[in-house]
Amino acid sequence: MARVSTRLRIDCGYEGTQFFGWGIQPSHPSVQASLEIALGIVLRLDKKSFQTVVAGRTDAGVHALAQVFHVDLPEDFHLSDAALRALPRRLQGALGTDAISVHHVALAPPGFDARFSALSRTYEYRIADLAARKNPLHRKFSVVSPYRLDEQRMNELGVALLGLHDWAAFCRPRVAATTIRKLQSFSWIRNAEGVLIATVKADAFCRSMVRSLVGSAVAVGRGKITVDDVARVREQKARVSQWPVMPAKGLTLVSIEYPPEADMAQQALDTRARRTLTSD
Amino acid sequence: MARVSTRLRIDCGYEGTQFFGWGIQPSHPSVQASLEIALGIVLRLDKKSFQTVVAGRTDAGVHALAQVFHVDLPEDFHLSDAALRALPRRLQGALGTDAISVHHVALAPPGFDARFSALSRTYEYRIADLAARKNPLHRKFSVVSPYRLDEQRMNELGVALLGLHDWAAFCRPRVAATTIRKLQSFSWIRNAEGVLIATVKADAFCRSMVRSLVGSAVAVGRGKITVDDVARVREQKARVSQWPVMPAKGLTLVSIEYPPEADMAQQALDTRARRTLTSD
Repeated sequence: MARVSTRLRIDCGYEGTQFFGWGIQPSHPSVQASLEIALGIVLRLDKKSFQTVVAGRTDAGVHALAQVFHVDLPEDFHLSDAALRALPRRLQGALGTDAISVHHVALAPPGFDARFSALSRTYEYRIADLAARKNPLHRKFSVVSPYRLDEQRMNELGVALLGLHDWAAFCRPRVAATTIRKLQSFSWIRNAEGVLIATVKADAFCRSMVRSLVGSAVAVGRGKITVDDVARVREQKARVSQWPVMPAKGLTLVSIEYPPEADMAQQALDTRARRTLTSD
Repeated sequence: MARVSTRLRIDCGYEGTQFFGWGIQPSHPSVQASLEIALGIVLRLDKKSFQTVVAGRTDAGVHALAQVFHVDLPEDFHLSDAALRALPRRLQGALGTDAISVHHVALAPPGFDARFSALSRTYEYRIADLAARKNPLHRKFSVVSPYRLDEQRMNELGVALLGLHDWAAFCRPRVAATTIRKLQSFSWIRNAEGVLIATVKADAFCRSMVRSLVGSAVAVGRGKITVDDVARVREQKARVSQWPVMPAKGLTLVSIEYPPEADMAQQALDTRARRTLTSD
């Protein structure tokens, strides 16, 4: 029997401002590159000997409060219990920045795959419109709108869009990728400061989908288009320009949901069968 | 009768990270210098022809959601209604940064003095202890504590310290400045993320007083000293080292309270009589 390599599940968060997104890019800083370098230092492993797989690939400037990735350690690598316990603190130290925070490190349960075991992703989007209190402390993760947005209409849109649909009208096109997704939640609240916060949840998202959904809601909230207009445009199933793709800095990945441990492996198999080659 | 110059009341906020505090300093960026340069540009006035007076002089790294200052325009300067209305937007533009946000500009009511008319100042201090969710988006304005802090004991301390006292034990000494202040509120809550937030309100604060008060609360919350210890040390009326002065970045000025317009002038006279030469 072949030796089973050690798979770690790592939970983390980051302010995306200074990164060109999660994914490694030549000559640009990325969250993934920072974490892989730190892992290499702490585990004394060559970077080429392991790789990371993430639950939700965030774009440049997008933040995460609860990102999840896994890493497979080389088969001949032994990680002691003490080393595992010390890993969050040592990894945080090796990162040398608090723009990325390491929350939790654990041995992954059998069959766990950070990407394919995930049941859903939940994002928040923050907009300070005319009715919101100005707050310079939140400028890195909320977008200022010079209009008064009608959150009731934006919530009507949210309800109208829910369900399993082809979201091509909201997605940056990708070859061989499906744009069929199940939108499970799209609702708005105003917090105590008057800031509009969207919660957007789906089994998975195609590229720029959340920011395009929010853009359609802003257009509806300003009274430029109606809920019916958005629903009609979605049925055209082709990339549209009726509303803006909102800026990245307002967007934060707030949770990744996984099934109970016993179902991790089956969920990964099901997801792979359904959407290999698709974006998260 | 001498011509009365125009006094403006300006409300603003700022993230203090990049500034060496409110007050102008040689060769270091300050909030006051940034605002005076922007005012000079927008009003086409020489910087030497006006000056600003602030309600609460914040230290390097301290933030403000609701700061207030006044500025007296030269006697021969005419500000039209249209120019006054356009001032917030133009001032924001001339600042060239969203680290400072201009909230409101208005003609000051008769007798108004941003510093001496103020009835009280309210600050918040944010601590993410072991029980709090890690949030990299809040790292610029909250302090991480590696301990679990007991907010009940911290609230007991808050109640025990209220009232009119000599706060010399909590203050950076200043020549000819009184350290007698009335502490009106010092309470702790945990927000939905588990972050401890102190609200600290007094008629005025001497230098480093809020951060020293919070330091004493952290020492009590960790169980290093008791509420009685802190009260006893305060009676020694001399600067102490039993607890730390907490880092600036956790501190935010959240409001300045003024009396009704009719009482502005009298309040300014009363305050001046009571505490000329003191710090705010």
